[in-house]
Amino acid sequence: MEKPFTIDINCDLGESFGIYKIGNDEEMMKYVSSVNIACGFHAGDPSTMRKTVSLALQAGVAIGAHPGFPDLQGFGRREMNISPAEIYDITLYQISALKGFIEAEGGSLHHVKPHGALYNLAATNGEVAEAIARAIFHLDKQLILYGLAGSRLISEGKKLGLQIANEGFVDRTYNVKGQLTPRTNPNATITSEELALKQVMKIVKEQKVVATTGEEVSVEVDTICIHGDGEKAVQFAKMLQRQLTNNQILIDSIKKDGSN
Amino acid sequence: MEKPFTIDINCDLGESFGIYKIGNDEEMMKYVSSVNIACGFHAGDPSTMRKTVSLALQAGVAIGAHPGFPDLQGFGRREMNISPAEIYDITLYQISALKGFIEAEGGSLHHVKPHGALYNLAATNGEVAEAIARAIFHLDKQLILYGLAGSRLISEGKKLGLQIANEGFVDRTYNVKGQLTPRTNPNATITSEELALKQVMKIVKEQKVVATTGEEVSVEVDTICIHGDGEKAVQFAKMLQRQLTNNQILIDSIKKDGSN
Amino acid sequence: MEKPFTIDINCDLGESFGIYKIGNDEEMMKYVSSVNIACGFHAGDPSTMRKTVSLALQAGVAIGAHPGFPDLQGFGRREMNISPAEIYDITLYQISALKGFIEAEGGSLHHVKPHGALYNLAATNGEVAEAIARAIFHLDKQLILYGLAGSRLISEGKKLGLQIANEGFVDRTYNVKGQLTPRTNPNATITSEELALKQVMKIVKEQKVVATTGEEVSVEVDTICIHGDGEKAVQFAKMLQRQLTNNQILIDSIKKDGSN
Amino acid sequence: MEKPFTIDINCDLGESFGIYKIGNDEEMMKYVSSVNIACGFHAGDPSTMRKTVSLALQAGVAIGAHPGFPDLQGFGRREMNISPAEIYDITLYQISALKGFIEAEGGSLHHVKPHGALYNLAATNGEVAEAIARAIFHLDKQLILYGLAGSRLISEGKKLGLQIANEGFVDRTYNVKGQLTPRTNPNATITSEELALKQVMKIVKEQKVVATTGEEVSVEVDTICIHGDGEKAVQFAKMLQRQLTNNQILIDSIKKDGSN
Repeated sequence: MEKPFTIDINCDLGESFGIYKIGNDEEMMKYVSSVNIACGFHAGDPSTMRKTVSLALQAGVAIGAHPGFPDLQGFGRREMNISPAEIYDITLYQISALKGFIEAEGGSLHHVKPHGALYNLAATNGEVAEAIARAIFHLDKQLILYGLAGSRLISEGKKLGLQIANEGFVDRTYNVKGQLTPRTNPNATITSEELALKQVMKIVKEQKVVATTGEEVSVEVDTICIHGDGEKAVQFAKMLQRQLTNNQILIDSIKKDGSN
Repeated sequence: MEKPFTIDINCDLGESFGIYKIGNDEEMMKYVSSVNIACGFHAGDPSTMRKTVSLALQAGVAIGAHPGFPDLQGFGRREMNISPAEIYDITLYQISALKGFIEAEGGSLHHVKPHGALYNLAATNGEVAEAIARAIFHLDKQLILYGLAGSRLISEGKKLGLQIANEGFVDRTYNVKGQLTPRTNPNATITSEELALKQVMKIVKEQKVVATTGEEVSVEVDTICIHGDGEKAVQFAKMLQRQLTNNQILIDSIKKDGSN
Repeated sequence: MEKPFTIDINCDLGESFGIYKIGNDEEMMKYVSSVNIACGFHAGDPSTMRKTVSLALQAGVAIGAHPGFPDLQGFGRREMNISPAEIYDITLYQISALKGFIEAEGGSLHHVKPHGALYNLAATNGEVAEAIARAIFHLDKQLILYGLAGSRLISEGKKLGLQIANEGFVDRTYNVKGQLTPRTNPNATITSEELALKQVMKIVKEQKVVATTGEEVSVEVDTICIHGDGEKAVQFAKMLQRQLTNNQILIDSIKKDGSN
Repeated sequence: MEKPFTIDINCDLGESFGIYKIGNDEEMMKYVSSVNIACGFHAGDPSTMRKTVSLALQAGVAIGAHPGFPDLQGFGRREMNISPAEIYDITLYQISALKGFIEAEGGSLHHVKPHGALYNLAATNGEVAEAIARAIFHLDKQLILYGLAGSRLISEGKKLGLQIANEGFVDRTYNVKGQLTPRTNPNATITSEELALKQVMKIVKEQKVVATTGEEVSVEVDTICIHGDGEKAVQFAKMLQRQLTNNQILIDSIKKDGSN
């Protein structure tokens, strides 16, 4: 008997702040297998973190920390020229804070995925990537590092011996080298839900995408990111879940090495 | 053979922020047995926390978290009307963040002592005291809770089953009930170093203080707080250490219950 | 010929922060005569301030500053124990910042209304009220001070010679002394739109309200506050405008003394 | 009779924050003719601003706003990838806030000088330079813009018709093109007080510097920046004042065009 296809679907959540609400966290959790929770620097606050962690534990999804730049006004999307040593410090701080909330509720931290400008910077900047990977490694060697598939963050994580997860995107196009089309390009995003679903299916079943040039290229993807904000987020998540289930694909979180 | 007298001397450290420097942490650590490290809300920042934790581990002192109100400008000294549920959240957040830095360096968190206005509020407000104690309890039942001797924070900690440490002060006067003279009183603080040293000796050897009325009153003190900022802080700490040593009093951190 | 009834309707706007959106500012401005714009401490940010000021100038409404406590997470609703001297400083800072945006666009600041916990504290605490009034007075003696009708803030403003505006509420009940029913009481708010509209009409035409006891009591009201957030805010504002207009009541901002 | 040489000496002040103290502002003001006061984003807070403005008015120095990136932890020294539109907004906000404090005390804002990473970015990035210049222009066309001598900020200021002041440095070396030696070079700074004083004299009397190559090159300098922090800051300022005075050079602020 064949082993069924399995894929992790992850989503950024816990991005509300004080009275400011973003996303429909409780609903989204029904359709994904892992969540990345903001840690209070680019979004989120201690109370939002506690509530989101609690919801995630109830939903039974794998919980990751989602550290970002200390820039609430810019939502962590504005690159800051912070030294690798300081990046190590802010990453360790944020991950540890979230880890505490999870452990206080009896759960355990599963993974770490940097946010926004920090994620992008870590994809190409070796020093930053290494600083993030090292912060994770020092805190808990069993944590899984989520990063852009094939990025510098992934390779630095591997170098340290961390378990890694290559991330792909449901609504981003790829070039012929299997890299994401830069957002500055007009065809960077996939707006058709049908094409988005198709891309996910191809990634899961064949580990391939159709590049913007029309050619099929290989991609290594362990987890697929869907967005949790926007009006149609929940609706799309539901549709994706149905499509995957109908095709005998299991949505499930990544198991830690050595566990089963 | 008699068991020698032992007392814990604690000090608030790690209160620098960015380029702003306060205190002489490295020096102070030579003369105390436990330190309370700011967690980034009222003082401190991730980089300062890492450096201070590292120094404390080298110095071999017991390391505590020193959570405060989220008010850097007011240094956590301005009371904020935050709900007990939110107090739980900001306490858990801050303690967890510091815990991560300590564990990343191979150490372990020893205690928690609230800072400034949060410390004072927790001394009398049962709901706040309970929220803080519960946050500590949920994170790690083995942590020791430092609070004002005989305060509400201490009783709420006991209620939950936390190991507690009654804190006394080297430079504050006491009234006939064994309570601190409010700071609004002109005779609230002891400015003479000689009298300060005398008070410490009496606390350690007899568990008594001379109240402002002249009477001797009993106080239960497990740890004595000395200040780490100010020009003469290091000098006084050194003098206190010499005096205690000369009197065969051991300066040592509090052992966790069950350990030895 | 009789002079027509005129009333100022004011609304708190510009409360978005970064990517976090609150309220439908552009729509609300069509139905009110004056707006209070957040200044970046409890809500708002420099970019939101510029955009809101620009919209307000286009809409032709009177623009006021809406300073609050430095507590974004608590939306300025958590009282902070800040000294009157510091209250003066944070008020002057925030008002000045907004004034700059208005003047850069060719307009002029019309009034100041404190926000949330600062508004409430200033209603009863003379020192705080005086500090706020003095900050306004020092910056520009022509500014109008909006405060809770009959409050300490109003009396301190008068004492300094500031033009004041007594504020009433469309959706709050009053006791027999003409004071707001505290929010802790179950009947503090008016949830029926019909009763809310009725209360406004009575305030405008007779300067009276029906107290919770059923008696009619006099109130002095120069401006009425309606809320800008919530799903039905725009709808209610539209309804209020129609009702007032149908009753020959003019919605217009308060003229500065000496102007006409 | 010849017109005597005159030079403006400026210094960054008001950089304390809450209980964190930097610099000896009151002393430094005795030896300079203009000061640049932090506005609460990279340093300073409303209370520090009020106190520093008050001291500056008493000292009779020209007062400038010193806006920076919103990054207290990095002291505004870490470049942030903020859009020009947002740079306009944060500049206008900060300048306006300081302007309010000055006007509340009966003075008037004299100039604007960006701080740290914002200053450096504006020296080369035309869009950022234009955004800053435009914010100043919109607020008050009479304000003087201080920028790195010959930089993009200066040229954008001129383009808008702002009065500008080319800034030179007492302790930085210049290359053969009259540009500052980058800080990454080992010989970027002048550590000898004697050489620093010599450079100032040459700048003031001949509008020339001796480049690191040994050649004399022309520089256009209207104001010279000295540092206000560090142990020897006051001592050096005093020495500079004495030297200039002994050489019949007047330390005086720049007059606004049209004034005299």
